[in-house]
Amino acid sequence: MIKDMTADEISLYIIKTLKENKKAEFEAILEELQPYDVAKIYEDLPEKHKGRFLLFLKTDVLADLMEELDKEEQLELLNILGIEKTSKVLDLMDNDDLALLLNELSPEKKDSLLSGMKKEESSAVQGIMNYPPETAGRIMTNRFVWIRDYFTVREAVDKFKIFAEFAESINYLYVIDEARKLVGVVSYRDLLLAEPEEKIREIMYERVISVSAATDQEVVAQTAERYDFLAIPVVDENNVLVGIVTVDDIIDIFIQEANEDIEKLSASGKSIDFETKTLVAAARRLPWLILLLFIGVISGRIISSFEETLQRVVALAFFMPMIAGMTGNTGTQSLAVVVRGLITQDIDRRVITRLIARELGVGITIGVTCAIIIAIIAYIWQGNLILGAVVGSSLFFTLIIGTLAGTIIPLILYRLKIDPAVASGPLITTLNDIFSLLTYFGIATMFLKHLM
Amino acid sequence: MIKDMTADEISLYIIKTLKENKKAEFEAILEELQPYDVAKIYEDLPEKHKGRFLLFLKTDVLADLMEELDKEEQLELLNILGIEKTSKVLDLMDNDDLALLLNELSPEKKDSLLSGMKKEESSAVQGIMNYPPETAGRIMTNRFVWIRDYFTVREAVDKFKIFAEFAESINYLYVIDEARKLVGVVSYRDLLLAEPEEKIREIMYERVISVSAATDQEVVAQTAERYDFLAIPVVDENNVLVGIVTVDDIIDIFIQEANEDIEKLSASGKSIDFETKTLVAAARRLPWLILLLFIGVISGRIISSFEETLQRVVALAFFMPMIAGMTGNTGTQSLAVVVRGLITQDIDRRVITRLIARELGVGITIGVTCAIIIAIIAYIWQGNLILGAVVGSSLFFTLIIGTLAGTIIPLILYRLKIDPAVASGPLITTLNDIFSLLTYFGIATMFLKHLM
Repeated sequence: MIKDMTADEISLYIIKTLKENKKAEFEAILEELQPYDVAKIYEDLPEKHKGRFLLFLKTDVLADLMEELDKEEQLELLNILGIEKTSKVLDLMDNDDLALLLNELSPEKKDSLLSGMKKEESSAVQGIMNYPPETAGRIMTNRFVWIRDYFTVREAVDKFKIFAEFAESINYLYVIDEARKLVGVVSYRDLLLAEPEEKIREIMYERVISVSAATDQEVVAQTAERYDFLAIPVVDENNVLVGIVTVDDIIDIFIQEANEDIEKLSASGKSIDFETKTLVAAARRLPWLILLLFIGVISGRIISSFEETLQRVVALAFFMPMIAGMTGNTGTQSLAVVVRGLITQDIDRRVITRLIARELGVGITIGVTCAIIIAIIAYIWQGNLILGAVVGSSLFFTLIIGTLAGTIIPLILYRLKIDPAVASGPLITTLNDIFSLLTYFGIATMFLKHLM
Repeated sequence: MIKDMTADEISLYIIKTLKENKKAEFEAILEELQPYDVAKIYEDLPEKHKGRFLLFLKTDVLADLMEELDKEEQLELLNILGIEKTSKVLDLMDNDDLALLLNELSPEKKDSLLSGMKKEESSAVQGIMNYPPETAGRIMTNRFVWIRDYFTVREAVDKFKIFAEFAESINYLYVIDEARKLVGVVSYRDLLLAEPEEKIREIMYERVISVSAATDQEVVAQTAERYDFLAIPVVDENNVLVGIVTVDDIIDIFIQEANEDIEKLSASGKSIDFETKTLVAAARRLPWLILLLFIGVISGRIISSFEETLQRVVALAFFMPMIAGMTGNTGTQSLAVVVRGLITQDIDRRVITRLIARELGVGITIGVTCAIIIAIIAYIWQGNLILGAVVGSSLFFTLIIGTLAGTIIPLILYRLKIDPAVASGPLITTLNDIFSLLTYFGIATMFLKHLM
């Protein structure tokens, strides 16, 4: 019916059914929409229609809608819904999405929402909230299908059919023993290809790839990506199956971690997006900027300690920003390669040695090339051969130092189990600023009498 | 059997079965391993065992293994396999992975490999290779399950069971009409919940979310992420279903696109990783560095045009790197927010206006804060109130300009359909360098007689 309509036409059509109070027609439209579309329509709906819109929605669609909204919109929606319907919606929401919401509420509000929910669901979500942020435990769901190893394929399929509606992933069935320990996994595909009377224990994989509930979410995502899994089981310290992480969460983790890397590399504060308020965004960015300000003052002190040299050959100042900028840039280039490489690569001594040797080679190559170019430019511009040699040789050394610093510092941080991205961006910029100024003015001072 | 063994123990065990020529035992181990594990073991295997290892592997495991290896390893493996087995392995490989491999070979080698394959498979992979890189057509697979709308649920399930083994995604069945046009989709979950005699056309979604084969892969990934799809159908210009893109490729796209953003923001050359050769990496990085070098020379010219001012007040040089660095940094911070925001956000005039207003607010806030701090430092350090005022007011203006440049330039590029990340990093650094030097020395020259 709405197949060939644009999003705007669908919105108008929905408003029409709301105005005319045609619930059946409304439901027929909603049947054909995805949760993402429902959320877009809800967000753009005039305020006066939102109440009836929510009233018309079925509880499971409301739960899907909740999962698509951001926190403010979720709270607004719950307020409109009222207590009784809220409980039903929360029961149907994915645990991990619900945990995210509850986590940001006041303890009273949280308890009141939890108390309205089914016992089973509220304890599941409370369980999730006990795990530290950014771990597997925090993003897992309890909506998975488990079977016992003595089941036949037919029994497994029967159980699967019953739970298919609620399960978040229908691709794998996890096999547990009497202590709920994870002992195997069967893909639904394998079930289809097996004989109905075969036992699960005969067709299951015993070497299950799983993650612990305390595992960092980045590692969870890497593991799922390596194995191309659509879901990965989560176990506690006794290998008891406690949940699964599904591939939609894996994608969100990759996006989130990439954003974090970029934020850290650009020394932005954490989690600034288009919705962040002005003062919040400024407050998150200021610490780095103030740090850089003081670092800038240190650079200034270094320059001032060469004041005499600078005063005699003011032309040295012309090349100062270029040398600092180039050194900083080559450092950032190396840093980007290392930080992203650490995400997908297995790191051992051989890899590290080869990488450092490679970057040294890169540093020398770009150092020689850029040094020759700038030496020629400086000579032609200022008509001073020694100045050209000083600027060129300084750039040669600082480019090598910058490249190596951008490679080695993140590797050291990684070894010390500090996220290389967090400290490296500003750290490398600073160190490279200081190195490059010291090198430049050091060489210049040595050749001062030839320069004048 | 190998359930509780470490990776190294499994490797040793496999070498033992190879040495003792125990094929059955070898196959029993392999049954329990994932393709990723098989690839790791193969890569670390001593050369002398690789031949028998490959000889022992079944064709489908060989195809899985191929998909995990990088290009050099793939070619090595094909050489060991010989022509006949190679053809069988290529037939079983995923089209998109095979297209990636073939694409890098010489035309002769490519044709010889294609000629050994099944007609159906070789024409499918050739079809994929006709699409431009980084489009949906290039990453899709033809291993999906399609049904007709007049099928009953039972017929659909029967067809599904036959194709489950080969299908890359078992989550959705796509419904086509007699012209192979995509007219609906049924999730496997829906099939399980439906009555066997119901018609597919009665239970299918008609409003199928699909992408065109020419769609940019980044848009494909965004669409799949929004809708939490495990696969997304690809159609040609006539809405004929030509393939599907599966979620494992979606994840790879997100990783690849994030890496590209980081490379571009850090002005690295494209696609440098741990394996890239020294000279190749240097050659990819040099263009940006040489560009920055010439930009640095422009900055130098600006400084030299204020030579007189600088000569009279050498202390101005002390604050030069700090002002340029801070301006560059705030620009990069804004840039990172915008570039990542554009990936997940829908952009309209309202969003853009609000974002620019927010960043203006941020620029003023951080400008005031940092200006006051540096003015006090400059005054205390140099004992010159006017110098403090000049440095402080310069920083105030350059921080606002830097923040706005980092926001507005990527938005303009986005509007012009140029990838904001590619040009923005170096472009913003340049413009901010030039703006900040002009502002600083301009203000300083105005107050020159008070400074001395």
